[in-house]
Amino acid sequence: MNCIGVLTSGGDAPGMNPCVRAVVRTAMAHHLHVKAVRHGFEGVMHCNFEDMHARDVGGIIQRGGTILQTARCKEFYTVEGQELGVKNLRYGGIDALVVIGGDGTMHGAMALHRLGYPVVGVPASIDNDIWGTSMAIGVDTALNTIVEAIDKLRDTASSHKRAFLVETMGRHCGYLALMGGVIGGAEIVLLPEVETHPDEVVECIAEGYARGKTHAIIVVAEGAKYNATALSKYIEEKSNFQTRVTILGHIQRGGSPTAFDRLLAARMGVRAVDALLKGNNGKMVGLHGRDISLVPLEEVTSKQREINMEYVEMVRMLAK
Amino acid sequence: MNCIGVLTSGGDAPGMNPCVRAVVRTAMAHHLHVKAVRHGFEGVMHCNFEDMHARDVGGIIQRGGTILQTARCKEFYTVEGQELGVKNLRYGGIDALVVIGGDGTMHGAMALHRLGYPVVGVPASIDNDIWGTSMAIGVDTALNTIVEAIDKLRDTASSHKRAFLVETMGRHCGYLALMGGVIGGAEIVLLPEVETHPDEVVECIAEGYARGKTHAIIVVAEGAKYNATALSKYIEEKSNFQTRVTILGHIQRGGSPTAFDRLLAARMGVRAVDALLKGNNGKMVGLHGRDISLVPLEEVTSKQREINMEYVEMVRMLAK
Amino acid sequence: MNCIGVLTSGGDAPGMNPCVRAVVRTAMAHHLHVKAVRHGFEGVMHCNFEDMHARDVGGIIQRGGTILQTARCKEFYTVEGQELGVKNLRYGGIDALVVIGGDGTMHGAMALHRLGYPVVGVPASIDNDIWGTSMAIGVDTALNTIVEAIDKLRDTASSHKRAFLVETMGRHCGYLALMGGVIGGAEIVLLPEVETHPDEVVECIAEGYARGKTHAIIVVAEGAKYNATALSKYIEEKSNFQTRVTILGHIQRGGSPTAFDRLLAARMGVRAVDALLKGNNGKMVGLHGRDISLVPLEEVTSKQREINMEYVEMVRMLAK
Amino acid sequence: MNCIGVLTSGGDAPGMNPCVRAVVRTAMAHHLHVKAVRHGFEGVMHCNFEDMHARDVGGIIQRGGTILQTARCKEFYTVEGQELGVKNLRYGGIDALVVIGGDGTMHGAMALHRLGYPVVGVPASIDNDIWGTSMAIGVDTALNTIVEAIDKLRDTASSHKRAFLVETMGRHCGYLALMGGVIGGAEIVLLPEVETHPDEVVECIAEGYARGKTHAIIVVAEGAKYNATALSKYIEEKSNFQTRVTILGHIQRGGSPTAFDRLLAARMGVRAVDALLKGNNGKMVGLHGRDISLVPLEEVTSKQREINMEYVEMVRMLAK
Repeated sequence: MNCIGVLTSGGDAPGMNPCVRAVVRTAMAHHLHVKAVRHGFEGVMHCNFEDMHARDVGGIIQRGGTILQTARCKEFYTVEGQELGVKNLRYGGIDALVVIGGDGTMHGAMALHRLGYPVVGVPASIDNDIWGTSMAIGVDTALNTIVEAIDKLRDTASSHKRAFLVETMGRHCGYLALMGGVIGGAEIVLLPEVETHPDEVVECIAEGYARGKTHAIIVVAEGAKYNATALSKYIEEKSNFQTRVTILGHIQRGGSPTAFDRLLAARMGVRAVDALLKGNNGKMVGLHGRDISLVPLEEVTSKQREINMEYVEMVRMLAK
Repeated sequence: MNCIGVLTSGGDAPGMNPCVRAVVRTAMAHHLHVKAVRHGFEGVMHCNFEDMHARDVGGIIQRGGTILQTARCKEFYTVEGQELGVKNLRYGGIDALVVIGGDGTMHGAMALHRLGYPVVGVPASIDNDIWGTSMAIGVDTALNTIVEAIDKLRDTASSHKRAFLVETMGRHCGYLALMGGVIGGAEIVLLPEVETHPDEVVECIAEGYARGKTHAIIVVAEGAKYNATALSKYIEEKSNFQTRVTILGHIQRGGSPTAFDRLLAARMGVRAVDALLKGNNGKMVGLHGRDISLVPLEEVTSKQREINMEYVEMVRMLAK
Repeated sequence: MNCIGVLTSGGDAPGMNPCVRAVVRTAMAHHLHVKAVRHGFEGVMHCNFEDMHARDVGGIIQRGGTILQTARCKEFYTVEGQELGVKNLRYGGIDALVVIGGDGTMHGAMALHRLGYPVVGVPASIDNDIWGTSMAIGVDTALNTIVEAIDKLRDTASSHKRAFLVETMGRHCGYLALMGGVIGGAEIVLLPEVETHPDEVVECIAEGYARGKTHAIIVVAEGAKYNATALSKYIEEKSNFQTRVTILGHIQRGGSPTAFDRLLAARMGVRAVDALLKGNNGKMVGLHGRDISLVPLEEVTSKQREINMEYVEMVRMLAK
Repeated sequence: MNCIGVLTSGGDAPGMNPCVRAVVRTAMAHHLHVKAVRHGFEGVMHCNFEDMHARDVGGIIQRGGTILQTARCKEFYTVEGQELGVKNLRYGGIDALVVIGGDGTMHGAMALHRLGYPVVGVPASIDNDIWGTSMAIGVDTALNTIVEAIDKLRDTASSHKRAFLVETMGRHCGYLALMGGVIGGAEIVLLPEVETHPDEVVECIAEGYARGKTHAIIVVAEGAKYNATALSKYIEEKSNFQTRVTILGHIQRGGSPTAFDRLLAARMGVRAVDALLKGNNGKMVGLHGRDISLVPLEEVTSKQREINMEYVEMVRMLAK
C-alpha cells in the first residue's frame, strides 16, 4: 500500500475536519501518500482527487463542516457506478480508502468492500443512528448546540403560562431530542420512535405549572408524529398555554467541534489508517466502552440501532 | 426621597439583571432604600414589593432574563389601574420608580409620570425599536446569538444548491434581521419595513451561486410579508434550490448578556438613579453617541424609530 | 430509609449542580426526604443541614459551581471528627448520604463507610484522577474550556517566530494537559508524570517552523517540572523564539456544564440514589464503558489512576 | 484610481478579517482592483502583493486573526524604508492603501501620507488606545473574552477566603482591565494609569467578605505597577486570603469577532474605501457617537487617548 484516499460523505457533522487531519497525518507518519477525494462519492465518480500534505490539514482542527465537502451521488448507488468508482480509485493510484460519514455512507463503503476494494469506515453523523458505535463523530457537538439553545430559553422564564417548543433534527431517530431532553431539563420529549398524544403534553405542562415551575420546555424531534409547529397549534387550541417555537435546523450540523468530538475524531482517524495498514478491510471503527475497535461493515449496514427507552422515563422523573 | 423602586416589564432582554444590580447598588451608595417590584406593572397593581439589599443582586450580573420577572398587565392600561398603581407605590413607601423595559413599558412609565409620580425609564428590548436611544439593553446579545447561529450554518456549506433561511424576531421592526444580515454575511434580508418579492430572493441566490458562492444565507424578520416558512415553500416550488429553515425564536431573548449590554446596563442604571436624585423625572435614559443622556418620556412615547435603509444596500454589496 | 443527604466537597467541578438536581429529584420520585448538607464535610461537622424540595433544584442544571458550596475541613480528617460527623448526620435525621467530589472526598466517604454509615460516592473533579471511573464529572467541561482557549491562540498566528504556552490545572495528574494537547493540536505537552527536557521543547518548536507551521502551541500542566513561566524563560534565553504565556487557572473549574457532563451527572445521580435504596453502600458510581456501575470505595481510595501514555505519542504524530 | 491595496499590521485584533472583506467587496462594487499586501509593512518592503477577488474573502467574516497576516518591520521605520515602500507600492500598481492596525500602524500610515502617498487608516487594536475613535476594531471581542473568563471564576465561589486575580492585556493602557472590571463585577481594578497600593487591594477584599460576598475578583492590567503574579504574592504574605491567578494573555487577541466588531469592521472598511475614492487621504476612519467619520492621521498620531477615570469609581460602587 502506497497511497490512501480519504473522503467525507452525507450530512455534515462537526468533527469531520479533525478526523481528516488525523487520517492525513497518521498516514504520513507511516510514510504513505494521501489523496483527498472531494465531494464524497461524487468525487469518486469524477476522479476529483488531490494530493494532500501535512500542511493542507493545518488550522482545520477547530473548524466545523468538512474541507473535503460532501455531496449526494445517485450514480454511485448503482452497481455500474460502484464498479466505475473502484476503477477510478485504482486508476488514480489510491490503494485504499477511509470513508467518513453516516449510515448511507457506510452502505457506500460496504459496496466498495464487496467489490474487493480495501475500505474502512468512520462513523460521523449528528443523528447517532449508526449501528456499531456508541457515539458517532458530531453527536456531542450537536447536543451542546441544543443544550445551549434550551439554556437561553430557560433564561426567559416569566410569570406567563408559556411553553417553549424546541425542534431538533432526527427524522427517524430521536437520539438528539431524547438526550437533549435529559440534559436540557425538558418536561417531555417527542420522538419518532414513540407515539405521544398531544394531550399528554398539555397535561404535562399543566402539571409542571401546578408544581410551581416557571417554564416548560418540550423537545420535539423533527420526525415525531406531531412536529413543533403542529404541536404548538394543538396546545394553543386545546389549552390556555401560550407556546413559543424554536426550530434549530441546520445549526445543529455546524459549530466548532467539542473536545469530545475532536478526541473521538482523532482516535477514529488514527485507528482507521492503522486498520488499513494491517489489512483489516471492510470494517468500521466504533467506540465501544472506552475503546476504539472494529466492526464489520456487513454488520453495520444490516442492523438497526435503537434508542434507550430508559431515558424517556428519566426525562419525566428529573423534570418533576 | 427615601426609597426607590425598580421593576422590569415586557419581553425579557439580556442585561436586565446587571441593570437592576446597578440601580440597587447606586441607590445604596446614595443611602437610599430600594424595593423590588416583582412581575412588572402587575406587581404595582398587587403591591408585590420587596426590600432589596446589596447582596440580593450578587451573582446576577451574568444571568439572562430578569430576577424581578416580567408580566403583562391589562389592568394597568386603564386610568383607574394607573391611579391605583400610584396609590400602591406611595402606600408601599416607594417614592420614585426606575422602570426597565421596552416600548410598551415606556408608555406605562409615561402614565405614572402624567399622574405626577416620579419615574425614570431605562430602555431594554432586543427589538431596538425604542425612540430616544441608539441601542436598547439586550440588542447586542441578541445580535450575537443570531450571528453565532448563522456562523454554524455557514460551516455546513456543501456542494448542494442550497439556501439557508434564518428567521429572527421582529414583528414590526426589522433591526435584528437587518443588522444580523450585515454581520452574518447574508445574501439578502427580508424586513417588515420593506416589501421584497420572493422572486428577488430566488434571483439573488442564483446569482450568488453563479459567482461561485458555496452557500446562501437569507435572514428573515418574523414580521416580513413572507416569513421563513412561506419563503421556503416559494423557493422550493419556483427554483431548483433546496432550502433549510432555522427559526431562532425566544433563544434571542436569553443568554448571558454580552460585554456591551452589561456596560450599557450599568451606565444606564447608574444614570437613572442619578436622574431621580436630581429630580429629573419623566425621562428615559438613552445612549446618544458615547453618552448616556435623558430624553423626555413624552417624546419617547410619541415618536417612531426607523431603521437605517443604507444597511439594506450594504448587505447586498458586501455579499457579492 | 426515610431521608438522604447530599453534599459536594473539594474543588468545584462543573456538573455538580445537575448531579445534585438528579439526586434530589430521584429521591423524591422514590418518596424519600432530602436534606442538603452545605459546605461539604464542614457542614457535617456543624449540622449545616437544610430540607430540599424539588423546586430548590430548579434552574440549576446549567449553572457552574455548586449551590451547596464546598469547603475543606481539617476536623473531619480525624477519627473523632468522623465519629462526630456520623452522630450529627443521624441526629439530623439523615439516614444515608450521597457524597459528590474528588479523590479526597472519596476518602471522606470511605471514612463514613468504615464507621458503618451508609454512603455512596459520585466522582466529580476536573483533574480526572479518580480511580474507578473513566470520566469524572467536570472533566469534559474543563477540556472544552482549554480547547476554546487554544483555538483563540491559534487565531493569532502570525509571521513572527512565536510559541504560545498554555498552563492547565493538574498538580499531580497531567490528564487535562495531555488531552488538551491532543484536541488542541499542540506541538508537545509537559506533564507531571513525564520529565521533558526544555531543550526538547525548543527543538520541537523549531522543527514545526521548519515544516512550515505558522504557530506552535505548548500545553503545560501546572505540576510539570517546568511550569509555563519557567519554560517561557528558558525558551527565550536559549532560542530566538518569542513566547507568550496563558495561565488558565480557575476558569477551568467554572462554566456551564457541557452536554456530556450534564448527562454523566444525571446518570450518576440517579444511580447513586438507586444504590442507597438497594443497600449497595460503601460504593462509588463510575463510568465503565457506556455503563454506570458501582466500585467499592475501598478500591477507589487505595488505587492510583494513571494516564495513558499512548496519547503522548499521538500529540507528536498529529502535530506533524 | 484603478487599484487599491489593503494590509493589516501590528498585533492581531478580532475583526480584521471582516474589515478586509468589506474593503475588498466595496472596492469591487466601485469597479476597482484590489491587491492584498501580506505581512503588513514588511510586505510593502518586499513587494508581497497579491490580487484579491470577491471569493478570496468568502468565509472569513467569522474568523479571528487576519488572513493577510501581520508582522513587525524595522526597515519601514526609517525614511529610506518608507521611500522604498512608496516606490514598491507604485511599482506594484497599487494607487492607494487601506491600512488596518493599531497606534504604531497609524504612524506607518502617516509616514506614507507625508510622502504624498494616498492612504486611509482603520483602527484595529484590542487595547483601545488609539486617539480619534471611541472604539477600535477588536476591543469588544476582547472584552467579551475577559468577561467570559471572569464569569467562570465567579462560578467557583466557595466558602474559602479566596481572591481571584485576572491579568488582562494592556501594557500602557488600562482600558481592557477597567471595562473588564466594570462588566465583570470586580472588586477593584489595577491599571498602568493609576498607582494602587496593594494594601488597598487587601483592604478591599476584606471589606467585601465582611459585607458577605462569596468571592472577590481583582482585574489587573499587565502594565500595572503590581502585575497579577506580584500582587498574588503580596496578598498571600500580608493577609490570610488565598489567591488564584489567571493570566489571559494572547487569548484576548483571538476568537470569532463579536457582532459589534463585525459591524464596526464592515462600516469602517466601507468608509475607508469611500474616503480614498473621494480623495480624502491622510485620514483615519473613527467611530464618533454613532457615526463613522474621518480624523486627520496627523491628529491621531500626535495625541494621546486617556481612560475615563469615572469608571474606576463605578467599579467600586457597583461591587458593594
